[in-house]
Amino acid sequence: MSKRRLTVEWDDPKTGAVRAAGLSGIDYVRAMISGEVPDPPMARLLGYRIVEAEPGRAVLTATPGEQHCNPFGTVHGGYTSTLLDTALGLAIQTGLPKGRTSTTVELAVKLVRAITPATGPLRVEARLVHVGSRIGTAEARVVDAAGKLYAHGSTTCLVLEAETGKGKGKRA
Amino acid sequence: MSKRRLTVEWDDPKTGAVRAAGLSGIDYVRAMISGEVPDPPMARLLGYRIVEAEPGRAVLTATPGEQHCNPFGTVHGGYTSTLLDTALGLAIQTGLPKGRTSTTVELAVKLVRAITPATGPLRVEARLVHVGSRIGTAEARVVDAAGKLYAHGSTTCLVLEAETGKGKGKRA
Amino acid sequence: MSKRRLTVEWDDPKTGAVRAAGLSGIDYVRAMISGEVPDPPMARLLGYRIVEAEPGRAVLTATPGEQHCNPFGTVHGGYTSTLLDTALGLAIQTGLPKGRTSTTVELAVKLVRAITPATGPLRVEARLVHVGSRIGTAEARVVDAAGKLYAHGSTTCLVLEAETGKGKGKRA
Amino acid sequence: MSKRRLTVEWDDPKTGAVRAAGLSGIDYVRAMISGEVPDPPMARLLGYRIVEAEPGRAVLTATPGEQHCNPFGTVHGGYTSTLLDTALGLAIQTGLPKGRTSTTVELAVKLVRAITPATGPLRVEARLVHVGSRIGTAEARVVDAAGKLYAHGSTTCLVLEAETGKGKGKRA
Repeated sequence: MSKRRLTVEWDDPKTGAVRAAGLSGIDYVRAMISGEVPDPPMARLLGYRIVEAEPGRAVLTATPGEQHCNPFGTVHGGYTSTLLDTALGLAIQTGLPKGRTSTTVELAVKLVRAITPATGPLRVEARLVHVGSRIGTAEARVVDAAGKLYAHGSTTCLVLEAETGKGKGKRA
Repeated sequence: MSKRRLTVEWDDPKTGAVRAAGLSGIDYVRAMISGEVPDPPMARLLGYRIVEAEPGRAVLTATPGEQHCNPFGTVHGGYTSTLLDTALGLAIQTGLPKGRTSTTVELAVKLVRAITPATGPLRVEARLVHVGSRIGTAEARVVDAAGKLYAHGSTTCLVLEAETGKGKGKRA
Repeated sequence: MSKRRLTVEWDDPKTGAVRAAGLSGIDYVRAMISGEVPDPPMARLLGYRIVEAEPGRAVLTATPGEQHCNPFGTVHGGYTSTLLDTALGLAIQTGLPKGRTSTTVELAVKLVRAITPATGPLRVEARLVHVGSRIGTAEARVVDAAGKLYAHGSTTCLVLEAETGKGKGKRA
Repeated sequence: MSKRRLTVEWDDPKTGAVRAAGLSGIDYVRAMISGEVPDPPMARLLGYRIVEAEPGRAVLTATPGEQHCNPFGTVHGGYTSTLLDTALGLAIQTGLPKGRTSTTVELAVKLVRAITPATGPLRVEARLVHVGSRIGTAEARVVDAAGKLYAHGSTTCLVLEAETGKGKGKRA
């Protein structure tokens, strides 16, 4: 039998949320890069890391493996969508002042080439396009080590007061 | 310290691909439900199962956990996107004859309520809207056990000859 | 030379806005159907009419002509997008109480078959999927007289207090 | 009474299609800019003009007027969608060799600020993101004379052999 096995570990996600309080968006993203704020569980489960951020831009890296595949040995579109959603949300985060947060209401993903474990490390770069008092939008691209494009996408987020972040279940 | 740990296991994904050859789309999806074709790796990693299918419709179930969360204790939009992408692709699959396959070129996700581990089991139902010789489209919804809506989405897939499925990296 | 000419007429759009104040969403849409509120200019320019509405649903009809074509004699995707955007916005409108309005932040359109002037009358039916305190979503389809599907789409709208409607330029 | 009236004129759209045969995508777009190929009917009806093109990029301009408005005196999202769809399709056209054409299967539009007749002239710039043997994708932005962003969007097109362009009704 050809069983495969993977074990992932993560920290209590509330730790990051507590540290986020009182930081501006860009400072919070930087605390994730430095490791001061722990990786969120989903980042450990799928295996991606935020590596760069500046106001209006965020970058993450990830290496697709067999665990991300669908039955045909190509990487699941949901893996790519997760990378894009993460980078897009972080790019918007970098544009928010202290006391404001955002929540994704729309994610759109275009898959232009198949990704496989042979594709190697991916780089996902997102850029803030618009941020106002009610919505933010961003665009992102997924490329390999040679800069070849595999996917791109965009998001629309609601911008909220951080206080109401507690009530995210009611966001809509 | 509050370390969490999860171990996932899956089978060689090629097993499923080999069995898929020579089946119509609906028969292939049914073979996944019966377990004759093994769960793809991504289904094991994120924890979802296909539970129903008929021509034009596919349903999966999943229970979100802490491992799917972002730093704020809400489930990552990428988890929901993966569930939608899976169900949407399967709904299109159910409409394809033997010798045809499809590949997603566009996924659009609308997140209307936050999902948390407290939300409990989710049901994702997708319906084929259009299938022609070149493209297929579908729509899907994510609801909880009480039928409350959390997300919905749509896809556009390219319809391909299964022979060219080998060359999926060139699809676009 | 084969010059074509079309003349369109419309009323001051402010007339409709004034009558809208103080109506619930569904009553406002019904006033458009009855003609009590005049057709908006864009409806006259492109030639479509709202014909049915109930809470959660709105229907319009339109007949494509040469004036809606691109250089290849097929109808411009922007015409179909306008029909979808209109029906989608009205479906959300039917779900809003007095004092609430909405503004589109995202429109997604899937074109599955080419429309030409030979296609004949189109029916565009939109259904409300979700309406909450901050966002609303809807889905719609474009079919011909025989029920054949040509396009479908979805929208995400922000729900706003009607008072802030004045400041729509600042909505985002 | 405050009746408004507008008369638009256009040429037989087949004239442009005939001249397009035998041109590469970029040469065809340039023939539209120079006026050698007549404006398509929809361009005259809504009032926009292609003004710049190079491989991978296309720009159009348009000035919104009362005829493009919805009942609240803001410009209809369908107008903005038409401008985006046009520019996006042209950007993809600029990347196609002689003998290849494209047809939109997906248009996504984000409206981030309200447009009114007071907004003045708009510039819509689209850039090709990906073009392969089966699909093409592009992104575009709508800005005013000062460069302020009002909307942005993206498209996915099918790339087809020009010969099959006759059978566009069967594209999907």
